Amino acid sequence: MADKKPRIVIVGAGFGGVKLAKLFSKDDVEVTLVDRHNFHLFQPLLYQVSTAVLSTDEIAYPIRTFFRKARNVEFFMAKAQGVDQARQVLLTNHGEIPYDYLILAAGATTNFFGMQEVEEHSFGMKTLQEAVHIRNHVLHMFERANKSQDEAERRKMLSFVIVGGGPTGIEEAGAISELVGIQKKEFHNLNFDEVSIKLIEATPNVLPMMPQNLREHTVDVLRKKGVDVMLNTQVVGYDGQVIKLKDGGEIPTRTLIWAAGVKAVPFIAECGGEVDRAGRIIVNEKLQVNGSENVFAIGDCANFCHGTERPLPTVAPVATQEAKVAHDNIMRLIKGDKNLETFHYKDLGAMATIGRGQAVVAKTSMNPEMTGFIAWCAWMFVHLIRLAGTHTNITVAIKWTWNLLSGTRLGRIITNIKL
Amino acid sequence: MADKKPRIVIVGAGFGGVKLAKLFSKDDVEVTLVDRHNFHLFQPLLYQVSTAVLSTDEIAYPIRTFFRKARNVEFFMAKAQGVDQARQVLLTNHGEIPYDYLILAAGATTNFFGMQEVEEHSFGMKTLQEAVHIRNHVLHMFERANKSQDEAERRKMLSFVIVGGGPTGIEEAGAISELVGIQKKEFHNLNFDEVSIKLIEATPNVLPMMPQNLREHTVDVLRKKGVDVMLNTQVVGYDGQVIKLKDGGEIPTRTLIWAAGVKAVPFIAECGGEVDRAGRIIVNEKLQVNGSENVFAIGDCANFCHGTERPLPTVAPVATQEAKVAHDNIMRLIKGDKNLETFHYKDLGAMATIGRGQAVVAKTSMNPEMTGFIAWCAWMFVHLIRLAGTHTNITVAIKWTWNLLSGTRLGRIITNIKL
Repeated sequence: MADKKPRIVIVGAGFGGVKLAKLFSKDDVEVTLVDRHNFHLFQPLLYQVSTAVLSTDEIAYPIRTFFRKARNVEFFMAKAQGVDQARQVLLTNHGEIPYDYLILAAGATTNFFGMQEVEEHSFGMKTLQEAVHIRNHVLHMFERANKSQDEAERRKMLSFVIVGGGPTGIEEAGAISELVGIQKKEFHNLNFDEVSIKLIEATPNVLPMMPQNLREHTVDVLRKKGVDVMLNTQVVGYDGQVIKLKDGGEIPTRTLIWAAGVKAVPFIAECGGEVDRAGRIIVNEKLQVNGSENVFAIGDCANFCHGTERPLPTVAPVATQEAKVAHDNIMRLIKGDKNLETFHYKDLGAMATIGRGQAVVAKTSMNPEMTGFIAWCAWMFVHLIRLAGTHTNITVAIKWTWNLLSGTRLGRIITNIKL
Repeated sequence: MADKKPRIVIVGAGFGGVKLAKLFSKDDVEVTLVDRHNFHLFQPLLYQVSTAVLSTDEIAYPIRTFFRKARNVEFFMAKAQGVDQARQVLLTNHGEIPYDYLILAAGATTNFFGMQEVEEHSFGMKTLQEAVHIRNHVLHMFERANKSQDEAERRKMLSFVIVGGGPTGIEEAGAISELVGIQKKEFHNLNFDEVSIKLIEATPNVLPMMPQNLREHTVDVLRKKGVDVMLNTQVVGYDGQVIKLKDGGEIPTRTLIWAAGVKAVPFIAECGGEVDRAGRIIVNEKLQVNGSENVFAIGDCANFCHGTERPLPTVAPVATQEAKVAHDNIMRLIKGDKNLETFHYKDLGAMATIGRGQAVVAKTSMNPEMTGFIAWCAWMFVHLIRLAGTHTNITVAIKWTWNLLSGTRLGRIITNIKL
């Protein structure tokens, strides 16, 4: 009999990390869950915080509350900085954590593809703080434009540009378009013809994971909502005042929201494994980091590319499905069983909302293809039930209903403007 | 007939300013409401944001939403910087605003009584940002103490000191005591005997506006909740690590919350009127700033001292009652009637909550003296109905009920810790 229980260390409390810790909480192991934040973030609804629909604590859930009754799960708030595989320790900004088994579930960050000027002046959409910054900034632009005497300056302040035609970009563009409609009711002296919303996508299509008819439908709906969808358009520079396009065009704007790409968090490069171009660590079919038996990686920070043309997409279902297999494989190793399970991804399809009463849902084994109001209801239902905590389910349901019926958004408060 | 409607400028969108703008919205005047924030803050519940009970947008309401249908009320987000009475303009960081009638309703800020070192290292409790800072800091102290190997350091991180025995200090101390109880359920390896909560009051009594029996009751309740109430104790210094007391005593702590005094916002000194020691501008019985016919002041920034020993207290009912009289007097002046109304304050009594199920309510003409659960229900009811917006009334009622039944606080997220 071993005196000491196996020490499991999980880096990241996103969908994958929390799922893993919940699975291990029922085993005879000691779990340490490490995250730089004390909350689990429901990233799919980040765009709703950035557009003043939801408040921060409706999509952020205290990590410790998940594990209130799980006495073998310890949360440690720290920023992971690297892994010393030889000594079997995780390095953090608050000291080292020894592990017997380590799972990297650290997630992704915005990819600016090396354009530092763009990175410096635009808004990412991966963290709670970024979403709050976008909300504050967009609302502030309206307040400033309202008193400006300079038309060019006003138009620049009322120009909102989103880059990236994936679900995040689509949802953000749709939600900003509706936010403008609400602002219109309260800015009696502002000329709303000066407002413009642009969605810029480098490829010929939005929503790459969707069939062609749904992509076209999405673009149609966005255009009807007043969003100028610019396909085959590439941003090459932004100084905080004017966007430069590859074709030489320019767009004056004070707001550039960058939803055009993700890469693994930089910590992943310090873990001693091989990484791909997007910084993701290569895993084998068993989800082990190349060459290591006791280090696993899952979710957005892992590159799983076995039997698929491209690495699996950076979406929650990949992370949670991988969590299950990583857990089972580690438990097998603990029990001395070297015969590990191979991971197979079950694609659950894709959905995106384009705004009030409008969404697209791709056909899967579980559901038919959907558009319009029915798709929107499906989207709302799926997101509502997946939010952590019954209290949040209830209050978000009330808030969505309230917004729908009252045509307002009470979350429109500017909390960090320096005067 | 005058071509131009009288221009009313109101500085501050607190209880007094919003009330004034609502009254003027029904008159044939042009109103400009100026505030440095775009939201009205429900200050009495600030302590609940600072202790993770409520989220920011539950006590902050978009100012423009009040005036959605009032086309003669214009909101202007700017920081007031002074008044040029000769030219009849309000000076702001975004330009000048001409007025025919000006009402100063700019409110109060924390008074550190000139102790710069204390000001630099402690937390005020007057703004939304300060409340969020307290929440983030207190929660972060638990996370850091949880892994610290140094007992003295741990005790310092788990020592929470509130200075000031008024309602804010009492409510904050009670709410922190309950927050500790919730943390205890989720920090399985922390020794909660190392936690201490101190409430420091310079005078012999808490709650100066209450009768002696309620003051004693309040101290008893706080002590039973584990709060060390230190009366006749004066803070003279704090460097972020150790509080220095006037009697030579020292209290090591990383958290000092300062609720010991208020003063008018500094802008008031730039308005061309005489101010008292707390920076409040002296008003006559008609609420006019000394020597000026068309400049009025109300609420926390005004010193009204007619027929009373001391200036009226800095509470919401004073501001809203003054708003009514200031409005009526300005409308008389507009109509050419020089016979102005004299302000008389109707004291509605005082109430303070000491924590879950415990409050004190002073006897008034409207209600008997109350303590305990019944007082707490009265406190909750009064605050709930006064919150702006039906949606907020509903969600806050749900949240309070949920917290009560579940023993949790989902607002415990740390949003601004630099790593």
